[in-house]
Amino acid sequence: METAVRGMLNTYPAGLGGIDADALARCIEQCISCAQACTACADACLSEGMVGDLTACIRTDMDCADICTATAAVLSRHTGYDADVTQAIVAACLTVCQACAAECERHAEAHEHCRICADACRNCAAACADLLDRLE
Amino acid sequence: METAVRGMLNTYPAGLGGIDADALARCIEQCISCAQACTACADACLSEGMVGDLTACIRTDMDCADICTATAAVLSRHTGYDADVTQAIVAACLTVCQACAAECERHAEAHEHCRICADACRNCAAACADLLDRLE
Amino acid sequence: METAVRGMLNTYPAGLGGIDADALARCIEQCISCAQACTACADACLSEGMVGDLTACIRTDMDCADICTATAAVLSRHTGYDADVTQAIVAACLTVCQACAAECERHAEAHEHCRICADACRNCAAACADLLDRLE
Amino acid sequence: METAVRGMLNTYPAGLGGIDADALARCIEQCISCAQACTACADACLSEGMVGDLTACIRTDMDCADICTATAAVLSRHTGYDADVTQAIVAACLTVCQACAAECERHAEAHEHCRICADACRNCAAACADLLDRLE
Repeated sequence: METAVRGMLNTYPAGLGGIDADALARCIEQCISCAQACTACADACLSEGMVGDLTACIRTDMDCADICTATAAVLSRHTGYDADVTQAIVAACLTVCQACAAECERHAEAHEHCRICADACRNCAAACADLLDRLE
Repeated sequence: METAVRGMLNTYPAGLGGIDADALARCIEQCISCAQACTACADACLSEGMVGDLTACIRTDMDCADICTATAAVLSRHTGYDADVTQAIVAACLTVCQACAAECERHAEAHEHCRICADACRNCAAACADLLDRLE
Repeated sequence: METAVRGMLNTYPAGLGGIDADALARCIEQCISCAQACTACADACLSEGMVGDLTACIRTDMDCADICTATAAVLSRHTGYDADVTQAIVAACLTVCQACAAECERHAEAHEHCRICADACRNCAAACADLLDRLE
Repeated sequence: METAVRGMLNTYPAGLGGIDADALARCIEQCISCAQACTACADACLSEGMVGDLTACIRTDMDCADICTATAAVLSRHTGYDADVTQAIVAACLTVCQACAAECERHAEAHEHCRICADACRNCAAACADLLDRLE
């Protein structure tokens, strides 16, 4: 799938405040992909016979989806990349992606959707950590 | 960018209720891509000198982003694809994507971000229309 | 709880395009209250021992929360109240609130959170229906 | 407006992990009220003649709305209140509410919607700070 993330960044009429456009685009892309994977994983967990064993996974998936969606939106605005707000939301996103990856990994052997979702969370966590490094 | 949309669909533990998996995946992908493009376009419009001429575009971008995000989430759950809910939200998404495409096209020559956003809205509208055809 | 919905509406610098401010405020308030109730009900369902019997309820709760949140945001913008977009999203919100109310009512005797959530959905559906009547 | 926040909390089938129910309910209520005020304030700013002077306010409003909405959803789930995730998202919410309050206060004399929005942001920041104190 080709998203418009990089195309939109290239047309931005003002500067990006010194932030690396590639790291920013990667983080936005990972956030929107991770949000979708978490929503789908929560739903797939609800279809498993052992749903009672997956309630922590479903909840963490939903938290992760909500925070990734908010983070993608904040990063898609160029509010000023040195700002406390950007750092705080990317830090929250990193935290929830790590938590969700750890939880999904516990079920990755039993459930392929948890394995794919854990990968999406790990990729998003890495993109958040990389962006945070550049913001500080 | 490689999203996990199709991978997650393939692992779904229950059936998709007769819906075409490809049309569904395409619609989810277009919704999340369009939501991001609209958020970024609204922000780019705010950086234009002539922002006063772009307020209708900014508002429609924001409506489109919100509705596309909700639609992607609903479609990522398999609540039952013959359902009234799915039809109603995809119909709303088609409506707002058409409205946002039309508004962005008015500014597409002057602003490259509006041109890219209009394309994202047209692609999403087409995917919604295609999915609606299959749901009815 | 006192929200700022009505205060914000009263300060709006432009006209509301003939829409009744009271019906609009009520619909926004019901949407944000219903979205929260549905998110909390989905989570409460996940804590029930019989979670396997509540998966349809959890999914519908999540769809309802997403669509109510998007509807509240669209209505909080004054994009032009005769518009197709507003009608389409309020119609989708009405549909999902009715579906979620019906599903939660099936569990209302067993689970007090489903009873409260069904009430929130019924109230939101009524506010959506009332607003739709005035938009047409 | 009467929300269902407290009613839902009272019916929760599991414990709240030692968190104060009143502080939690207040924070959820303030988050959903603040998100709505910020969305409405951004839209009202777009209707002002001097919209070019309000672009920072509009962007911060939108960031604040997105983060408050995500925070309300995470807090409406009882994922475990000692968790890093809850602390991180409430900290991000506190940060953006303070930033948005400060920006809106700069326009509060000129624009009543900015004054009301600044109040909503201050109230939400206070509720977030109070909840954070209790989580640590």
